[in-house]
Amino acid sequence: MNYKMKIKIGDVILDYLIKKKVKHVFLITGGAIGFLIDSFYGNKKIKYICALHEQSAAMMADSYSRLGPNFAATMSTSGPGATNLITGIYCSWFDSVPNIHITGQVNLNESRSSSKYTKNCRQIGFQETDIVALSKNFTKKSIKITNHNKIYEVLNVLDFQSHNKRPGPVLLDIPMNIQKETIQKRKIKLSKYDSVIKKNYTNLIFNSLKAAKKPCILLGAGIRNSGLSEKDIINLSKVIKIPYLLTWSGFDLMDFNHSFNYNTIGVYGHRSSNFIVQNCDLLITIGCRLDTRTTGSRVNTFARDAKIISVDIDRYELNKNRGLQIKHKILQDAGIFIKNILASKNTYKANLNWFNYCNLLKKNFPFDRESGFRGKFVEIYRFIRDLSDSLDNNSIIIPDDGGHLTWTMQAFKIKKGQRLFSAFGNSPMGYSLPASIGAAFARPKSKVICIDGDGSIQINLQDLHLLKKFNLNVKIILINNNGYGIIRQFQSLYLGKRYEASKKGISNPNFKSISRAFGIDYYRIDTNSKSSIILKTVNKKGPCFYEVIIDPKQTISPKLEFGRPIEDLSPLLERDIFDKYMHTMKRKVKKANRTFQESN
Amino acid sequence: MNYKMKIKIGDVILDYLIKKKVKHVFLITGGAIGFLIDSFYGNKKIKYICALHEQSAAMMADSYSRLGPNFAATMSTSGPGATNLITGIYCSWFDSVPNIHITGQVNLNESRSSSKYTKNCRQIGFQETDIVALSKNFTKKSIKITNHNKIYEVLNVLDFQSHNKRPGPVLLDIPMNIQKETIQKRKIKLSKYDSVIKKNYTNLIFNSLKAAKKPCILLGAGIRNSGLSEKDIINLSKVIKIPYLLTWSGFDLMDFNHSFNYNTIGVYGHRSSNFIVQNCDLLITIGCRLDTRTTGSRVNTFARDAKIISVDIDRYELNKNRGLQIKHKILQDAGIFIKNILASKNTYKANLNWFNYCNLLKKNFPFDRESGFRGKFVEIYRFIRDLSDSLDNNSIIIPDDGGHLTWTMQAFKIKKGQRLFSAFGNSPMGYSLPASIGAAFARPKSKVICIDGDGSIQINLQDLHLLKKFNLNVKIILINNNGYGIIRQFQSLYLGKRYEASKKGISNPNFKSISRAFGIDYYRIDTNSKSSIILKTVNKKGPCFYEVIIDPKQTISPKLEFGRPIEDLSPLLERDIFDKYMHTMKRKVKKANRTFQESN
Repeated sequence: MNYKMKIKIGDVILDYLIKKKVKHVFLITGGAIGFLIDSFYGNKKIKYICALHEQSAAMMADSYSRLGPNFAATMSTSGPGATNLITGIYCSWFDSVPNIHITGQVNLNESRSSSKYTKNCRQIGFQETDIVALSKNFTKKSIKITNHNKIYEVLNVLDFQSHNKRPGPVLLDIPMNIQKETIQKRKIKLSKYDSVIKKNYTNLIFNSLKAAKKPCILLGAGIRNSGLSEKDIINLSKVIKIPYLLTWSGFDLMDFNHSFNYNTIGVYGHRSSNFIVQNCDLLITIGCRLDTRTTGSRVNTFARDAKIISVDIDRYELNKNRGLQIKHKILQDAGIFIKNILASKNTYKANLNWFNYCNLLKKNFPFDRESGFRGKFVEIYRFIRDLSDSLDNNSIIIPDDGGHLTWTMQAFKIKKGQRLFSAFGNSPMGYSLPASIGAAFARPKSKVICIDGDGSIQINLQDLHLLKKFNLNVKIILINNNGYGIIRQFQSLYLGKRYEASKKGISNPNFKSISRAFGIDYYRIDTNSKSSIILKTVNKKGPCFYEVIIDPKQTISPKLEFGRPIEDLSPLLERDIFDKYMHTMKRKVKKANRTFQESN
Repeated sequence: MNYKMKIKIGDVILDYLIKKKVKHVFLITGGAIGFLIDSFYGNKKIKYICALHEQSAAMMADSYSRLGPNFAATMSTSGPGATNLITGIYCSWFDSVPNIHITGQVNLNESRSSSKYTKNCRQIGFQETDIVALSKNFTKKSIKITNHNKIYEVLNVLDFQSHNKRPGPVLLDIPMNIQKETIQKRKIKLSKYDSVIKKNYTNLIFNSLKAAKKPCILLGAGIRNSGLSEKDIINLSKVIKIPYLLTWSGFDLMDFNHSFNYNTIGVYGHRSSNFIVQNCDLLITIGCRLDTRTTGSRVNTFARDAKIISVDIDRYELNKNRGLQIKHKILQDAGIFIKNILASKNTYKANLNWFNYCNLLKKNFPFDRESGFRGKFVEIYRFIRDLSDSLDNNSIIIPDDGGHLTWTMQAFKIKKGQRLFSAFGNSPMGYSLPASIGAAFARPKSKVICIDGDGSIQINLQDLHLLKKFNLNVKIILINNNGYGIIRQFQSLYLGKRYEASKKGISNPNFKSISRAFGIDYYRIDTNSKSSIILKTVNKKGPCFYEVIIDPKQTISPKLEFGRPIEDLSPLLERDIFDKYMHTMKRKVKKANRTFQESN
């Protein structure tokens, strides 16, 4: 490498991305990014994928980063090219996914900020939009570079910010005149990220465990964000043998069949899982922000008999103080925390009584219990179970949002090695199709299962072309309930079954014709027995489109109704049965229920 | 009407929209907007159209407002529902289109701003996004309402801001708990907009005209924004008989065949039109922000022999001071300015010498001059002319952006009564299809011609379903040049014909299959003679899809190359011919060219 040579700004950026092990950049060209994209010419170490909407490009990068060696990039032009990224970047922002978005910008002398006379104009340069002013709201750092000699330093700052402490997206805005500049080539050197607090909390944890009778652990997104994987959780479970509960973001950290896996809690959690957390006396949460989908909206009723120890890298999350009584706030990277425990020689196993109680719950309220069979349609909970049975350990499952996400989280039986995620915090319609494409590039040997809805898939429908164009091994499972099912359930509960804009005013295109128009094999699954089509065809390489017809009236069950504590999912249990499992909390729960009834 | 009754907040908003003559609201439902949308139930005065992407909804509202009685609305849920609107709202922001975007928001007690402990968290409520923090960058006013009793006042403020002085979009963010409230019904009363400066500039104008030998007028978007139409321009042309030049936003203000119409100027303008503005000695610009696509990037060479009088409602545009020497800055609504002139008894007609010069230009550089015929493909300039010949006076033409927009603006022969617009300032790919849908609802008796590109149409491809669902009279004219043609032309000029991400890496889906999958009639036009298909079929009601195959190498011509003054379009004229038409400016032009060559 000749470090005396001058290289283009775009070449520096590609060098950086190559150093970060990015193999594919998701982009759309345009007037203000053309000089930068020109640097791909002749570069064999990195490719670009031409997206068909910048929104998709950002979602591809989000998913690519969740799976890959933890980094991804997009490039887009100024103005609409940049603003189209926003919904996708928000996915990475809320779920702490590191990646970089590189936007072209008008020449510096054509920008509003170039003089006091122009700064109040709506636009000076063509397609000029101040993306940095917007994106500071949803990135770790956004920089418009105005001096090309600073490119190495700027990339270092952005890289540091993207990974340091709680990760997230960053944005680099590059005016066209800067893109045209060259600079002395240097080696890419990146700063080390802060180690945050290295303190060892192992004693606290084991002392707390020993003092507890009914301890459990809740696993969140921060664990993978810190670079750990399900193997580390298996190791943790060999050291701390107690029930493990999961948030949605921690769903794929533990095999469904692992004997310590007591599944997901929260508003759409399992009855048994919620009973466990609501009856425990010690709750250790690791890399989980304890948002209201996990705790219920009555936050002060969450784990109210437990001493809570919370490990989070974000001090704002630890201190948000929304009614939770966190006894020990551990401001630390989840990975450092767990590695410290693994490195200690301590072990702990919960007492048999506690395991017996938890296992009784598992038996009496099995994870697939509340699914009603419907003759004319495919029964969704059963279908999701069958689907999970048919998938190998290397599969990546990406549900979109709304009903089909919830059904998946409630019924899917995750296997070791599988990944399952969605853009949980942002939850945009239209995520899973581009995210599946990003996943297929990140893991070309994996099968990607895109679980989508009839409303959601239309948002980024154009991306079907990319499945065919690259012959990606993406299987679309379209759960068709003919409208916005999760909204209908809401309207049924709270709005007198007036189905405005969820059923009324809604119609679907012909998905069979559409998938075939894009050259993608299509199968219709409209009875339970036809689910076997998936088992027979899912291992064929390349894209495939399965349309699964379910009852439009299919609801999500169990589900927390507004105002109740999370142990009291609807449909409500008979009170005597409820009291039986809520034994340790009887008095408090009765009081809580009374308060609820009074306030209604 | 019983004003003692209590009504829901949503009912107040619908009352407001009905008062504003909005007949259709473009929306997608979602968790945080459900209570508001419920107000549509049983309301027969206003409908909603279920969009398939919030981005489209915002573009539909943009177009609806450009055509309708000047107002439009969207509704969307929080988080991704709100951020998906952004690119569409920017269209309205840059082009001064008034409309309102109503977003749902999480409950106030679930918002980050609810306490000092939560304000630094990335998200508290599910799908919480601070859309007001973002949208203050691209709206006249954005308000999150926190007291339901203020809804009437808040609507009044937003309405005022949307229309007052330079119009634009506004945004109202409504937390769910506010949506559930009721309020005493009141009559919708709206403030009058500022009259701005009522001063009469008629004398200044006529005195300037009398002192001039070569005057011309440049028409911009502000004229329609002020409520005037092409009829007022016809009246103006009866009073002031001089050459009228057009910006793209003023394109449909004057019949192509009107004898005073000397067509569009600028970077992609006509040679003759640019010669006229560059040789005039008085230029009156009305409602035109004189951006660099009009003036060229060498702003100080624009109309450099002319006294410039500029009428604009936005003082920042008048004072942006980018090298333009504006002699008289008239801070006034274009409508008031023109009405004052029409009300005066003055008239003016330019001298014959000036008209002769202008007409000689028109004759020697006809508007359709520079189009090369290509045997194997459809010749685009000829096609656009043929297309315009085949359309009736009631048609609405909406090109998207890039090459096909430019070809349309260069070759289309606009007729009296027709409307033609795009989202000129923002120019996002994907505008014309949803904008055509918005237009079809605003003007159900009109035929809407959606001129799209093969790259652009994919952005909001899902909207094809809405064409069929509502049997909208929208004709898609897909100009297929197999990639991003305008970028290829740029790469050909400035990047050594390295066609990264414009040709390389690009492929198209099968548009015939896709349009048929959506149930839309399809015609392929791949030779010039097949253009007659349009003439034969365009008057059939309902949607239709025409794919027009042009030479991928087709360029935009004439076009200003970077660094030249706008009279010197490429392909460059022989200097002796150039000098002949640039007679009045010979010395300055030569100097300008020399400066250009030196700096290259």
